[in-house]
Amino acid sequence: MASVRVPYSKEDDYADEIIRQRQELAEQYLGEPFQHVNRYSFDPHVCRGNIESFIGVAQVPIGLAGPILIHGEHAQGEFLIPLATSEGTLVASYNRGMKALTMAGGVLCTVTADQMQRAPVFIFQNARDARDFADWLREHFSQVKAAAESTTRVGKLLNIEFYQANKFLYTRFNYSTGDAAGQNMVGRATYVACQWIVQNNSKVVRWFLESNFATDKKASQINSIMTRGKRVTAEATIPGDLLRQVMRTSPEALHYHFQVQSIGGFLSGVNNNGAHSANGVTAMFIATGQDVANVAESSAGILYCERTPDDALYLSITIPSLIVATYGGGTGLPTQRECLKLLGCDGPGKVNKLAEIVAAVVLAGELSLASAISSHDWVSSHEQYGRNR
Amino acid sequence: MASVRVPYSKEDDYADEIIRQRQELAEQYLGEPFQHVNRYSFDPHVCRGNIESFIGVAQVPIGLAGPILIHGEHAQGEFLIPLATSEGTLVASYNRGMKALTMAGGVLCTVTADQMQRAPVFIFQNARDARDFADWLREHFSQVKAAAESTTRVGKLLNIEFYQANKFLYTRFNYSTGDAAGQNMVGRATYVACQWIVQNNSKVVRWFLESNFATDKKASQINSIMTRGKRVTAEATIPGDLLRQVMRTSPEALHYHFQVQSIGGFLSGVNNNGAHSANGVTAMFIATGQDVANVAESSAGILYCERTPDDALYLSITIPSLIVATYGGGTGLPTQRECLKLLGCDGPGKVNKLAEIVAAVVLAGELSLASAISSHDWVSSHEQYGRNR
Amino acid sequence: MASVRVPYSKEDDYADEIIRQRQELAEQYLGEPFQHVNRYSFDPHVCRGNIESFIGVAQVPIGLAGPILIHGEHAQGEFLIPLATSEGTLVASYNRGMKALTMAGGVLCTVTADQMQRAPVFIFQNARDARDFADWLREHFSQVKAAAESTTRVGKLLNIEFYQANKFLYTRFNYSTGDAAGQNMVGRATYVACQWIVQNNSKVVRWFLESNFATDKKASQINSIMTRGKRVTAEATIPGDLLRQVMRTSPEALHYHFQVQSIGGFLSGVNNNGAHSANGVTAMFIATGQDVANVAESSAGILYCERTPDDALYLSITIPSLIVATYGGGTGLPTQRECLKLLGCDGPGKVNKLAEIVAAVVLAGELSLASAISSHDWVSSHEQYGRNR
Amino acid sequence: MASVRVPYSKEDDYADEIIRQRQELAEQYLGEPFQHVNRYSFDPHVCRGNIESFIGVAQVPIGLAGPILIHGEHAQGEFLIPLATSEGTLVASYNRGMKALTMAGGVLCTVTADQMQRAPVFIFQNARDARDFADWLREHFSQVKAAAESTTRVGKLLNIEFYQANKFLYTRFNYSTGDAAGQNMVGRATYVACQWIVQNNSKVVRWFLESNFATDKKASQINSIMTRGKRVTAEATIPGDLLRQVMRTSPEALHYHFQVQSIGGFLSGVNNNGAHSANGVTAMFIATGQDVANVAESSAGILYCERTPDDALYLSITIPSLIVATYGGGTGLPTQRECLKLLGCDGPGKVNKLAEIVAAVVLAGELSLASAISSHDWVSSHEQYGRNR
Repeated sequence: MASVRVPYSKEDDYADEIIRQRQELAEQYLGEPFQHVNRYSFDPHVCRGNIESFIGVAQVPIGLAGPILIHGEHAQGEFLIPLATSEGTLVASYNRGMKALTMAGGVLCTVTADQMQRAPVFIFQNARDARDFADWLREHFSQVKAAAESTTRVGKLLNIEFYQANKFLYTRFNYSTGDAAGQNMVGRATYVACQWIVQNNSKVVRWFLESNFATDKKASQINSIMTRGKRVTAEATIPGDLLRQVMRTSPEALHYHFQVQSIGGFLSGVNNNGAHSANGVTAMFIATGQDVANVAESSAGILYCERTPDDALYLSITIPSLIVATYGGGTGLPTQRECLKLLGCDGPGKVNKLAEIVAAVVLAGELSLASAISSHDWVSSHEQYGRNR
Repeated sequence: MASVRVPYSKEDDYADEIIRQRQELAEQYLGEPFQHVNRYSFDPHVCRGNIESFIGVAQVPIGLAGPILIHGEHAQGEFLIPLATSEGTLVASYNRGMKALTMAGGVLCTVTADQMQRAPVFIFQNARDARDFADWLREHFSQVKAAAESTTRVGKLLNIEFYQANKFLYTRFNYSTGDAAGQNMVGRATYVACQWIVQNNSKVVRWFLESNFATDKKASQINSIMTRGKRVTAEATIPGDLLRQVMRTSPEALHYHFQVQSIGGFLSGVNNNGAHSANGVTAMFIATGQDVANVAESSAGILYCERTPDDALYLSITIPSLIVATYGGGTGLPTQRECLKLLGCDGPGKVNKLAEIVAAVVLAGELSLASAISSHDWVSSHEQYGRNR
Repeated sequence: MASVRVPYSKEDDYADEIIRQRQELAEQYLGEPFQHVNRYSFDPHVCRGNIESFIGVAQVPIGLAGPILIHGEHAQGEFLIPLATSEGTLVASYNRGMKALTMAGGVLCTVTADQMQRAPVFIFQNARDARDFADWLREHFSQVKAAAESTTRVGKLLNIEFYQANKFLYTRFNYSTGDAAGQNMVGRATYVACQWIVQNNSKVVRWFLESNFATDKKASQINSIMTRGKRVTAEATIPGDLLRQVMRTSPEALHYHFQVQSIGGFLSGVNNNGAHSANGVTAMFIATGQDVANVAESSAGILYCERTPDDALYLSITIPSLIVATYGGGTGLPTQRECLKLLGCDGPGKVNKLAEIVAAVVLAGELSLASAISSHDWVSSHEQYGRNR
Repeated sequence: MASVRVPYSKEDDYADEIIRQRQELAEQYLGEPFQHVNRYSFDPHVCRGNIESFIGVAQVPIGLAGPILIHGEHAQGEFLIPLATSEGTLVASYNRGMKALTMAGGVLCTVTADQMQRAPVFIFQNARDARDFADWLREHFSQVKAAAESTTRVGKLLNIEFYQANKFLYTRFNYSTGDAAGQNMVGRATYVACQWIVQNNSKVVRWFLESNFATDKKASQINSIMTRGKRVTAEATIPGDLLRQVMRTSPEALHYHFQVQSIGGFLSGVNNNGAHSANGVTAMFIATGQDVANVAESSAGILYCERTPDDALYLSITIPSLIVATYGGGTGLPTQRECLKLLGCDGPGKVNKLAEIVAAVVLAGELSLASAISSHDWVSSHEQYGRNR
């Protein structure tokens, strides 16, 4: 098989003919004709810009959860949530959490920060030059900004952060990127900005456009601390009776479990002291055409709960690096666009609305799974003492 | 809309009728009929166990990359890789890396560890009881193992790890789980084991089945250190001439960038000192029916490269917590099963083969993106000095 | 000054004459005669093995705190604590905490693990060899143990941990080391063990005795997780009235602050979610002749508190990597030996007693500072509302 | 012994009489009279502000290392280094490194950042209030600054950083603090600033002066990233011949070991990818009267090395959170002041000089230990193949 090459057409790589040639090649490995991968509901040309060497689609089941009541600054009202997953009980579990949160009066959602970055590193003769370069860059910020923004109508360079180590100056160029996630936008802009920089500062010995300081598609402390994409918080206060009746748990049990899992997470070095926000994030990302690989950083979370004097539980999660878009990437693909529209997140100016919805959904999942875990204790203690046999 | 409820059928929730009712509800929010989400190539009953409140599918484009030559213990030969993504250039970039690695003689892949865990925490009066309980558990391991394994024909309890903090004893129950990822299998087994434990040890004051020490769907240091799922390494040595001619970079440039990004990642607190393994992992996960939320921990990586005396580059990545399955979850869904079959990973005993393929693909992506980044330096130094104008 | 050399005597480097020569050299830099550094109460020959190029001593003030009531397995009763520090209020603050803990009935202390390690790394052609080597090492453990223990009467090789990444096999050789901290002991033993290994296993391409997996004198997640030195926990339950009357705070305020600082520490990436255990650890280390540089790892901590149903606060800290000794290093120096004796920790078999005392002292410091911080809230709310003017 | 109380004198707690009473109490526990702790060369009244319940001193041996040639912006020339330690070989090892670095032409040292912080947390009804409060604080920065600086002639509030999570706004108030380390200075200033804030912003529900975001005396990612105290880098380029002749290693061996220990440290979660900077830091801290507990954060480090085209090794370490002072704390105590003077760091405006010297010393220790470890490989490979028997 050494001479195999995947067929490619210079003229129209999304034409049925060339797609069929690639499918046939794949079918040699498959040992039989495709019956499903090759069944899609759209003209493949819509995938231009989304995929190379297209052969068909993965069909990922979507379940419908909700409604969930949200009080955001952008998302307001009840929302039905499309969740694309193949993991049984996920939809049911989130649905249960949504029901409880809605009964509790809904979820307060807030986007507290919003920036996308590219993180070039500049390399010098020594640390002193690196330090002085940071000053130079501060002084020339307006020129750098102009160079960066010359490449985009949407992206705005907000500021540059500096992190020196050895003879390296790591930076983060932070941008607002409108409705797009913006990784490509900020990559291009920063590249041009860097070209201006190295043309105007002769002390730069070498540089790279990336250096593990934006940590695109990787979990990192820097992104939890400094924000990547949207920093969004969902909060709710759930009455004790509701927890006992609907979730078979209690403020005490949930809070106790939270404390124990916080210590566990501190010791294990986890980047999310909650239960499983990746589940909700991923299911929404697949459904709505997000870049699913961003689950790596979007799955970080900071959970907090406390008992209130009136027998309720205040529960909150902050997602510090949620990468979402309503424009660009897979958001324009057919099923994905329908799901965005179902959420009222199609069209301009809806990206923070989508961020708020994701956060609310994640909170529902936290409540549901934490309730299940904390009531295990109840189950087992009853089993242990034989009371409920 | 407060009284909205998602339709549900006790008798057959995958019947067309009830699905249609749910779609109609969703279409009220959508404002128009579905034209794509409701277009799937299979009988919805195949989704039983995969999704609740099914309404249709997300169609995620699949591109074909490769072939890539792999020398694993399980995967041997050339493989065509289905990548499900909506991010343009991803398939092309991975394809470029696969080509180079194949020209370099292929990728050596090895699974070095394999275990899935559930991590119950046991709570005591004090630390002394917690410590003594660990001894008790070591002494009663055979009974605990028997209880755990009573729930599964496949899962085997390999050992139990102990991590004491304060009055808590965090544990990890490590299992082999055959071809399944095994989270549910080990959950059930550990739950029954815990019931046996608390019935036979009166010192346990309280316990929870999870405590942030298995960190399912969350990135953590513990899983990078101790393995979750498969620990798999891909390695290749790429001649300098090949790097210069095919990748427009060099051993020196790749190695230098690696060093700089390693310092960057150390300072930023990233959990993957490489470039973007989440991209390849996610695209393969969606295509082959994996639990995509596991990208959270499967995106961790340990990249290493060194220059050899003969002008080549040794490049390697270890994925310490890769969660893959060839049985269960979404692996039996129609398009997903076709993609597994395309990889020769359908049928029993193929899960390590799949792990090796994923690792090889990830290495291809690292080579490709690192080449692109490191040659930016080349581009820019030319621009800087005006040579290529 | 380029030709300056510090005087050295081959015959007796601790003779007054050679010391005086070095002092005179230093005094040229100092610009005046020493009046204090050269004032020590002992024959310099006692420093043999502790210092090279001796010129005198740092005199660090010692304050007396306590007594503190301890219920350990090794330390039982009331202890007066010598704290060597130059930071004002430290002794007073710890003393306040000791008083409260003693009034509350004392501190329960438990050593839950005890091991010192050296962490050689073995380098192979590839990951497969690295994995197989781990199996080989497990099979040859008894020979490796014999080789290691041939170098020491005290040290016992307990087990070897394995951590594979790329073509490297990182290990931790865990030893019990009697009353010594044991870093040198395990270094020598492991070096000889490694020589046996590389002589008997031809697959090892290269190896180093250290590799950042024991992280001697460095804080690390691995040492918090897996223990280095003593893992010791101190616990106490403090009645609400005592907190209000003696500490001017309350179970509620302390617990609330704990929750907030736990989130803070999770986000900031701290290795100790408590307040300041380094203060107590350092002051005791200097007083008792410990290797003070081990404050780097000994300052890690896992704090936990919870409110009890009867208006008290359960407070606990686990120090996961406390490096202490009652033999070797500086423990035999004159003032240091007196302080160990004051604690009843001189003579054989007292090292766990010392570990328990350190943990109890640290808990006292946590209680005292947390009370001060949490009652700031009280102070400030009064200032805010003008009540206590 | 339940009624024991440590004697205290309201009038003069540093009078010989009351000190003697405390010594006598301690001697009851000790079982014999003090012969060393009670031997100090100064009038105890000099300890006022440094210690409570003074009973004497710990005498920690000081060895003399160097000279080391430094090219700093503040430290220029050759320095003799006083190292206070009880760990044998430490002085000799550092001395060896200093010799090599000096022969190599000296160490380039640069302070790249300098700020001390206090990190109050403000608690709100919800995340939205927390976010808006950050804006309010930005708008009222000048008033906050005025309030803070009203408490100090030296300290200047440089800026405030914001980190939101849940309903909490964690902040870092960054100050310049002159020659002092400044923890107390910034504590007082921030406390007064907070009082102004809560009097003028009614949205603050609760606040604490500390919250684990300054991580005083604790290692943390935030301090490595954002600087605490001095951020200082030491750099040197060491010729290959010098390494071979003086250090019995080579650029290749040192660089290879660096690469392997970097991977080790990345996987183990260490906060210093070098070898042992805590050793040099601690020995200088004890000698010069620093707050030794700050070894917790001052022991963090970012090591980097690369081979140069001309057979040399570029070696560099950045200490991101070095807490040093030449004024306040223990810097005025007799032996400590003599050691500062020996370094030329007494008197105003010398604190950055001290930081540079510490960094240079740390680099010497890195070179020395890394050489010893990397040449083990040489030793062992010879032993392995029997060549040097």
